[in-house]
Amino acid sequence: MIAARESDTRLIELRGGLGAVPGVKLAGVHAGIKKRKPDLALVLFEEPMACASVITTNEIKAAPLLVSEQHIAQSGTTMRAIVCNAGCANACSGERGERDARATARQAAALLALEPTQVIVASTGVIGVYLPMDRVVRGLERAVKDLEAGMEAAYDAAEAIMTTDNEPKLAAYSFYAGETRYVVGGIAKGSGMIAPDMATMLAFIATNAPMTREALRDELREASENSFNMISVDGDMSTNDSCYAFAPPGDGEPPRGFSEALRAVTHDLAYAMVRDGEGATKALTVDVSGARDARQARTIARAIVNSNLVKTALYGEDPNWGRIIAAAGSARAGLDPESWSLYLNEKHWVDRGALEVLSEAEAHRELENTAVQIRLDLGIGDTRATAWGCDLSRDYVRINASYRT
Amino acid sequence: MIAARESDTRLIELRGGLGAVPGVKLAGVHAGIKKRKPDLALVLFEEPMACASVITTNEIKAAPLLVSEQHIAQSGTTMRAIVCNAGCANACSGERGERDARATARQAAALLALEPTQVIVASTGVIGVYLPMDRVVRGLERAVKDLEAGMEAAYDAAEAIMTTDNEPKLAAYSFYAGETRYVVGGIAKGSGMIAPDMATMLAFIATNAPMTREALRDELREASENSFNMISVDGDMSTNDSCYAFAPPGDGEPPRGFSEALRAVTHDLAYAMVRDGEGATKALTVDVSGARDARQARTIARAIVNSNLVKTALYGEDPNWGRIIAAAGSARAGLDPESWSLYLNEKHWVDRGALEVLSEAEAHRELENTAVQIRLDLGIGDTRATAWGCDLSRDYVRINASYRT
Repeated sequence: MIAARESDTRLIELRGGLGAVPGVKLAGVHAGIKKRKPDLALVLFEEPMACASVITTNEIKAAPLLVSEQHIAQSGTTMRAIVCNAGCANACSGERGERDARATARQAAALLALEPTQVIVASTGVIGVYLPMDRVVRGLERAVKDLEAGMEAAYDAAEAIMTTDNEPKLAAYSFYAGETRYVVGGIAKGSGMIAPDMATMLAFIATNAPMTREALRDELREASENSFNMISVDGDMSTNDSCYAFAPPGDGEPPRGFSEALRAVTHDLAYAMVRDGEGATKALTVDVSGARDARQARTIARAIVNSNLVKTALYGEDPNWGRIIAAAGSARAGLDPESWSLYLNEKHWVDRGALEVLSEAEAHRELENTAVQIRLDLGIGDTRATAWGCDLSRDYVRINASYRT
Repeated sequence: MIAARESDTRLIELRGGLGAVPGVKLAGVHAGIKKRKPDLALVLFEEPMACASVITTNEIKAAPLLVSEQHIAQSGTTMRAIVCNAGCANACSGERGERDARATARQAAALLALEPTQVIVASTGVIGVYLPMDRVVRGLERAVKDLEAGMEAAYDAAEAIMTTDNEPKLAAYSFYAGETRYVVGGIAKGSGMIAPDMATMLAFIATNAPMTREALRDELREASENSFNMISVDGDMSTNDSCYAFAPPGDGEPPRGFSEALRAVTHDLAYAMVRDGEGATKALTVDVSGARDARQARTIARAIVNSNLVKTALYGEDPNWGRIIAAAGSARAGLDPESWSLYLNEKHWVDRGALEVLSEAEAHRELENTAVQIRLDLGIGDTRATAWGCDLSRDYVRINASYRT
């Protein structure tokens, strides 16, 4: 999707997401946590894997996050499996929630002949309710039998971690380092992060490219920073947000090309989330260019993409550029009121702080696209950042006014 | 409205807002900036007044704000008039915008035999368009003739500064210091600040209680901090937000009772804004108690009242307390996951981080009220703060999807 513009590594986009990675088996079943839909995913790595995580900075963290962090600390280079359920976030569930998360890992380990600490557990759904452990246990038994390699199994797993998502999210790229072919693939769920819902986003990414755990961690942080961390409405994360990456443990840095492939996978998964945002009818890309530094560019890009007024104007195809610049100024990141210019789908929209170049009718026409790009050039430097979002529709309100009922 | 709970000063709630203050004349006319509705307010103080302001921290500031700040710097204890128009924010309007703001003050001054710097100018409406100066000038001529004291004139002025407001906002209180009767009164506009719109909020407050300009400034800052600054969705202000206060210039501190009266006026105007929020069907009061300090309490209260998910759940009367606590945790202000408790309309809702005390049906019933109060007790200190907001409805989206058309 973003191809290899900035590099000479040739990336090849693949189908199947996490299922495109050699040595990965997956399953998705209906365990009965949700009424009808698949709700339990299982992933098994044939070989022990190094594991790194990026998890929510919310002070309220769901039990599975805490348990998985302990498992990574103990078995960080020998991880073998992921269990993820939808329908229940297992957050604000006290000591019982933690016991349930541990029991889930123990049960999966028993069925797969692993140590419990070799299992990552994750949950997504409603906060403040307990996991129905009998159903989880029975679901796991079936999931173990269903484990398979390949695209279809990856779809099943990606579907089983969905909440209000309309479609499963998978991304995979391959690249060559010398004669060796490597793959990076992942699955994710995210009902848009229009506003961070409980357990809004989860992502699981794996590769067959070996590297140290530290290298994997650094790569994952960098890639998340410019993808998953640039799509949230307010920069905050939910109680369950987490992203886990897995790679064969190696002695050094990953092969050349890995960073680009990982960036492409995280970008595509992140963009899939905003495109599938709750109630969204349009995807929005906000570029901030001409910035003094990356921090400034990122802060302003996020302020624009997070503005309810920008998002409702986008929904209404209303060329209200005042809202965009008001949102940018409210970030208080050092905007110069005299030097900014605005572009709509790369057409010059407003020049130097005031002059409307594009007519209202022309701007309206640009906004009719289902994918809209806004670029704000700050006119004071040469750094650039991108954030992604979507519009705020009446359907968003409908969906979120009765999540539980 | 908030009465004199915390003080022995007896406040008496009055009608007429700014019109209840002795020595104030007002008018509101239809100048033709908007198609049909009144759109130009004029306020004249019979005596020169000390003036203080609190204005937006947005880096994009509308021209009238900059001009008025200069006027306060020059004539800060001899201010005589306010001109405020609706329908056009005069923001992002470049040099011409500043010229127009100055011309407005000059014209009002000529008609009233004042110096231009004795006039405060303010605008609210769409960003990026120019003031129709011929209409402003003709409107001012009529407004000068209409100037009157009293409640009805105050209503006219309060109506003439409305944008998407459904009703004019006025508040006034009187109190006695010894035998002397003092009044604090104000008018405001604010289409809810559900999200800060362009020119979302303006307030003009006056009193007949004398004090130094410095004392007035300190009092206004303190009162705004706990009222207007606790109702915004994201803590940001628009390009035109501003609040001006006027008092007869004196040698010292205001009389005892003034602070309470000013707090009552700013509270009532602020609460009127959220109650009249764009598309709002319910008003929300969020108290955070048991906090370590005021900063923590305020940060968390604002995070809750700003959450789209809390607001949509409120709209749907959905007792989804997980969203409230997730919003609180996302503020990263030092929430202890084990020690918080939640109250709904002062009924115990959730105890110590997990235990649901109120049944879902009982909680739903509480949420049916059109005014809902949530209290989150952090359980770690004894400081408290309050924020005000409203629900996020499908009508909010409808209103904001086509503001200009």
